[in-house]
Amino acid sequence: MTDRPKIAVSPTSRPAMFDAMVDAVVAGGGQIVPVDEASALIWADPAAADAFPAVVAHAPALEWVQLPYAGIENFANQLDPALQWTCGKGVYADPVAEHVIALTLAGFRHLHTASRATSWPAQQGKNLLGAHVTVIGGGGITESLVRLLKPWNAKITVVRRSNTAFPGASRTVTKDRLHDALPGADVVVLAAAVTNETRQMVDRDFLAAMDDDAWLVNVGRGALVVTTDLLAALQTETIGGAALDVTDPEPLPDGHPLWDEPDCIITPHVANTPEMGLPLIAERVRQNVERWIAGDDLLGPVDVHAGY
Amino acid sequence: MTDRPKIAVSPTSRPAMFDAMVDAVVAGGGQIVPVDEASALIWADPAAADAFPAVVAHAPALEWVQLPYAGIENFANQLDPALQWTCGKGVYADPVAEHVIALTLAGFRHLHTASRATSWPAQQGKNLLGAHVTVIGGGGITESLVRLLKPWNAKITVVRRSNTAFPGASRTVTKDRLHDALPGADVVVLAAAVTNETRQMVDRDFLAAMDDDAWLVNVGRGALVVTTDLLAALQTETIGGAALDVTDPEPLPDGHPLWDEPDCIITPHVANTPEMGLPLIAERVRQNVERWIAGDDLLGPVDVHAGY
Repeated sequence: MTDRPKIAVSPTSRPAMFDAMVDAVVAGGGQIVPVDEASALIWADPAAADAFPAVVAHAPALEWVQLPYAGIENFANQLDPALQWTCGKGVYADPVAEHVIALTLAGFRHLHTASRATSWPAQQGKNLLGAHVTVIGGGGITESLVRLLKPWNAKITVVRRSNTAFPGASRTVTKDRLHDALPGADVVVLAAAVTNETRQMVDRDFLAAMDDDAWLVNVGRGALVVTTDLLAALQTETIGGAALDVTDPEPLPDGHPLWDEPDCIITPHVANTPEMGLPLIAERVRQNVERWIAGDDLLGPVDVHAGY
Repeated sequence: MTDRPKIAVSPTSRPAMFDAMVDAVVAGGGQIVPVDEASALIWADPAAADAFPAVVAHAPALEWVQLPYAGIENFANQLDPALQWTCGKGVYADPVAEHVIALTLAGFRHLHTASRATSWPAQQGKNLLGAHVTVIGGGGITESLVRLLKPWNAKITVVRRSNTAFPGASRTVTKDRLHDALPGADVVVLAAAVTNETRQMVDRDFLAAMDDDAWLVNVGRGALVVTTDLLAALQTETIGGAALDVTDPEPLPDGHPLWDEPDCIITPHVANTPEMGLPLIAERVRQNVERWIAGDDLLGPVDVHAGY
């Protein structure tokens, strides 16, 4: 047995997260120390990236930093390549995939219409069972979605950069053939990171290639979508509807015309809430502390040069 | 090979169903004949029970009647015990189980609130992943629900008459111990038939035994619930919410106070719509015609004395 490694947890600004991270470090076999003695730092507040430089300035022995985020845009210009960086990548995939299913079913089953009704509504609805699902992005969310929908007999098409078949998908399509994957889909799910290639990919042409009863579900980032083009597609009813957990701009301001669209469901970036995510990131930290002690590769490594 | 059996399809009042049933009979190996020559009758309109006696009066050779319903209340006083009766029992279970999941996720994820919002809402939500699900009823809907939720790691408690463990459930509770199954459940699903034992089972005591953030989901029958007691529980916020695909009275009249409850979602008996159900009942009919020819037991037998 090696000595228990010296690990700091900071900041203390979110007590519930701080406590959970401390417990996770101890459960993984680490010893809690102040940051100036620590070889590893578990960052315990996703909203406090600004406080990061001052903390790290007093950490001469630091080798590894664990960030709580899955998307780490706020830390992008702090990624010192002399250190090893890990993040919450993949950890939050299950709740986000669950939200994709919740939003898709709400759209297919017209629950948004039912929620506003004050009179027995018209009977309508279609099934996710056996439906054609196209997912843009071949990451952790898509893995979870494929796994959760396994008994549902859905036909899942995954659009990804690589042409390696996505495990469990009915079909894998490379990004340059994106428009082959849109016609015939009952729902198109955006689960990609924002890069120069994907930014504003959902534009007028993309939306025109979708079936007129297909739903668009966005759990990626608002910037994947050209909002004005989406609004036009909803207003002219060339798609079935849109369910957005992320928007551009975000938060969507009061008075924005998307609020008035009858087939638009907007949730406030809650696919993974802090309450859902805390036990999941705590388990990731516990595992990474164990791996750090054992000298194994850490889970969720950040590519410092790619910035994610 | 025996001769192709003589089977009538009637009435013609719903052309889409009539056509699908004729195709199913032929696909199963039957021959379509007028009802006065038929040994079997496929009833092709769930809404036309009143027309049934006049048709059967001219069917001297009749041995078997296939009804399209899962619940066959409308035919209850026409069940001549000299005939063999089958119905759509179990056929519609998958879409209904899907609707249970849609309603539960909508409640847990506050999609009803989001659907009414015109401003960025508060962040809230909980997961069905890993949740405690209690289902009242151990029939086909429950089988489908257990199957569809298998990868979701939910803890499913089934309340049923028999004390035989329900396959795939975490726990099976007999009906006399119902109140053991209510505390701790994140959602309580009503998927039972209405009988003298189950009518109005969801009363003040039942609702008081539920957790104050638990949702009630009813896809069984409206009469399982004492509506005034449910309304009181919603008004006093002693449960998390209610999602009802069936109501008492049904349809729920305009001006009924349930329409105004913020945590109540009402869908108009669409867990299985005619469009969802038609291919499913057609496949059942095809299989039963094959079985009739082979002399095998038919699927979905009606217990004439029990009335379901």
